[in-house]
Amino acid sequence: MTLIDLNSDVGESFGRWQLGDDEAMLGLVTSANVACGFHAGDPTTLRATTTVAARNGVAVGAQVGYRDLAGFGRRFVDVAPTELADDVVYQLGALDGMCRVAGTRVRYLKPHGALYNTVVHHEAQAGAIVAAVRDYDPDLPILGLPGSALLRATEAAGLRAVPEVFADRGYTPDATLVPRSEPGAVLHDPDEVAQRVLRIVSEGLVRSVSGDDVAVRGDSVCVHGDSPGAVAMATEVRAALDAAGITVAAFT
Amino acid sequence: MTLIDLNSDVGESFGRWQLGDDEAMLGLVTSANVACGFHAGDPTTLRATTTVAARNGVAVGAQVGYRDLAGFGRRFVDVAPTELADDVVYQLGALDGMCRVAGTRVRYLKPHGALYNTVVHHEAQAGAIVAAVRDYDPDLPILGLPGSALLRATEAAGLRAVPEVFADRGYTPDATLVPRSEPGAVLHDPDEVAQRVLRIVSEGLVRSVSGDDVAVRGDSVCVHGDSPGAVAMATEVRAALDAAGITVAAFT
Amino acid sequence: MTLIDLNSDVGESFGRWQLGDDEAMLGLVTSANVACGFHAGDPTTLRATTTVAARNGVAVGAQVGYRDLAGFGRRFVDVAPTELADDVVYQLGALDGMCRVAGTRVRYLKPHGALYNTVVHHEAQAGAIVAAVRDYDPDLPILGLPGSALLRATEAAGLRAVPEVFADRGYTPDATLVPRSEPGAVLHDPDEVAQRVLRIVSEGLVRSVSGDDVAVRGDSVCVHGDSPGAVAMATEVRAALDAAGITVAAFT
Amino acid sequence: MTLIDLNSDVGESFGRWQLGDDEAMLGLVTSANVACGFHAGDPTTLRATTTVAARNGVAVGAQVGYRDLAGFGRRFVDVAPTELADDVVYQLGALDGMCRVAGTRVRYLKPHGALYNTVVHHEAQAGAIVAAVRDYDPDLPILGLPGSALLRATEAAGLRAVPEVFADRGYTPDATLVPRSEPGAVLHDPDEVAQRVLRIVSEGLVRSVSGDDVAVRGDSVCVHGDSPGAVAMATEVRAALDAAGITVAAFT
Repeated sequence: MTLIDLNSDVGESFGRWQLGDDEAMLGLVTSANVACGFHAGDPTTLRATTTVAARNGVAVGAQVGYRDLAGFGRRFVDVAPTELADDVVYQLGALDGMCRVAGTRVRYLKPHGALYNTVVHHEAQAGAIVAAVRDYDPDLPILGLPGSALLRATEAAGLRAVPEVFADRGYTPDATLVPRSEPGAVLHDPDEVAQRVLRIVSEGLVRSVSGDDVAVRGDSVCVHGDSPGAVAMATEVRAALDAAGITVAAFT
Repeated sequence: MTLIDLNSDVGESFGRWQLGDDEAMLGLVTSANVACGFHAGDPTTLRATTTVAARNGVAVGAQVGYRDLAGFGRRFVDVAPTELADDVVYQLGALDGMCRVAGTRVRYLKPHGALYNTVVHHEAQAGAIVAAVRDYDPDLPILGLPGSALLRATEAAGLRAVPEVFADRGYTPDATLVPRSEPGAVLHDPDEVAQRVLRIVSEGLVRSVSGDDVAVRGDSVCVHGDSPGAVAMATEVRAALDAAGITVAAFT
Repeated sequence: MTLIDLNSDVGESFGRWQLGDDEAMLGLVTSANVACGFHAGDPTTLRATTTVAARNGVAVGAQVGYRDLAGFGRRFVDVAPTELADDVVYQLGALDGMCRVAGTRVRYLKPHGALYNTVVHHEAQAGAIVAAVRDYDPDLPILGLPGSALLRATEAAGLRAVPEVFADRGYTPDATLVPRSEPGAVLHDPDEVAQRVLRIVSEGLVRSVSGDDVAVRGDSVCVHGDSPGAVAMATEVRAALDAAGITVAAFT
Repeated sequence: MTLIDLNSDVGESFGRWQLGDDEAMLGLVTSANVACGFHAGDPTTLRATTTVAARNGVAVGAQVGYRDLAGFGRRFVDVAPTELADDVVYQLGALDGMCRVAGTRVRYLKPHGALYNTVVHHEAQAGAIVAAVRDYDPDLPILGLPGSALLRATEAAGLRAVPEVFADRGYTPDATLVPRSEPGAVLHDPDEVAQRVLRIVSEGLVRSVSGDDVAVRGDSVCVHGDSPGAVAMATEVRAALDAAGITVAAFT
């Protein structure tokens, strides 16, 4: 029996500013990367989001980010590793407190935005995240890019590293992501994306931008949550997996 | 055997800005009201503070406040009760996460600044704090002003309410605090303050601004942490209690 | 010839979070209440908004608010008057700087949200706003509620007070606004609102919630900018005024 | 007649948190780099600081920084150049507004902390600062490190670039600053620093860490404002210059 997890970013509203349709996404995915307040996510949003996640049996992950509301955590910040570790613990604890009153717990960690991209290669910041998780709860898995400094550091520390693949991102012949500045970086057709996910999950292969098939591997598939059409695309992906008899379940 | 707790505000630095001498205060008090990041307290400060508290066996309390760094939580904010409850859970969880990596736990809650003053009479905000604590952990006591709406709501919810007295504040003949705008509101002589605390603890009496003795009662004595001379005053108070054979221990 | 101004809130996005359709609203109104960064409005949003306003000949007003991004400036903050005055000068200067690079200037001030509501009656905060405007540029008019403490203090200081009426708000028989918690507080039908504005402007009368006509007076009509249907409603109002031969022009 | 300017960072307090002794420093220096609220400096602090500067005839410079209160602007933030330019205009305008009510004007710009260090080499962020100043007021000079990308871009844009030297920093034989991580990076003896400044100003020479004299040139000497002993050191430097008959005056 084939098993796969679907993850998506949620909890990214802030006060008056709404972003994404969390209620809908939490009916489709099995793991929810919930913002923790540093780049997005006010406490009331986080409580509502974790409450729906708990009700739907969706695993809550702490999507920690840089302390940068104005930049939505999408700008690299050269924060010292020890301070980054403290920022991660703070965010983990805050979201875990919300989960506690919502009847669930933080089940994994996934970095957000620029922090996600940075720890693909930045050993010191990757190590800071791993140190924070190890100190907070060494049983929490870390979700990230296959081959990243983050997942290497996770494994080196004896923690569980969970690689993910992307439903709507183009892949190079080397199985890395096509940079967003290049053509083919993002796919927009829900049907095409759904078939692509199906093939990744069932065959472990994806058609790269060069036209060749490349092997990709992941225990979770990331579907985007805040773009226009996000819900439609996630719906297609989920339906395709269900129709193919693939069990969609949290990796935790 | 007489037993009393000494509490003080700590963890009130923020980034480059240092406030108070936490290391020294945590060698004198038995309960530490640690800021949680909304009015003061960056994650690195909180980690350092909770680590010292854990090492010294000082009970950590979550000193939750309004989200107002620029005002240091000293300005009333008319936040809706449900949002305030969410803000309190977020702060509780964040500090509890810090405590977890520091080898301790949040043991009680005490509101800060304008929130402290507001919930003396503001039923809705008082109720929000109590609801947050009840949802997060009903075993956490709440420290506050005797006779306040907060402590009444705490008891009504079946939680433990802990009244406190103030070492260096003037009392009216009605056993309420002299407003800060009036003469005699704050006492500055360490020796006088120490003798005053001793009498409160051993006799339950304090000389009011009118010159009469009034009965005051508390399970904890608050000594200020961030004023010039704070450490000297706390040192005197602690020494006077120790010399009188009174056991100073956390109320938790 | 009848002359009226239409004003609306714009510039209320913040970073990743978009709010309202500023481009469309700035094609309909003649005065733009632009957020100044304390309750909404990042610098890049403010620059884009003031640039479009300058291009369209729309007068820019500084919509100052409480320092409260999480609450969108909709929560009363008990800030001391001298500090509020400084906050207002800071916001005025920041927006004026943006206007300068956009080829225009701040032409008036209007408080936002809870600050707007507070200075209807709060003399000290009203006085702080007036003091800030007087110190910064005594030629700047202040836009506000007729009969408010703010407009009284404005006139008392020898500054120009500009009263406004509301296109889509219900009025009591006393010509005050129906509180939002009561039925009839907000009107939603664009056609009805347009006819109502026409009558206010041409006859100085509005049908109150009790069914009686009451006299209302204002030099500007406020149309909301961030609700769903805001653009449609403003379009109707503007079209009705144009069709009736009423000149829509900035009060400045 | 020899002429030199002394500049120092001031206005770096924030709310409850005090930093430095602005009153004293503003009695010693001739140019004040005033924080603008993004990395430090609440409006009330800025008003007080600009008021004293105006009274003392000290030239006010806008010390713009990254939007990072928690990091005090000391962490590189990879903000896009167009957004950085907007952030700079916002800060310039805000401080200029404060100056206006204080009876003065912003007279120059100097970047703060990590932004200062970044634009020594980061062409895009350097260009963004220059573009902001050019758009806001092309008559404003920019103060920075000799040979930096910032000063090159300033001159290329036809604006006035003002190089500065550092009173208490060690220099390499190449006339660059000794990195803070290396020995000899910072000098602490007020007398030694004063003599050093005197020689820089009168002879254009400084003894490098290698023991050789190297030529350094600047129209302004930076003395630090927030370290312990800052006032004592600035006092010595000023006294030495005065005693040597060197005129200390703002470069503006």
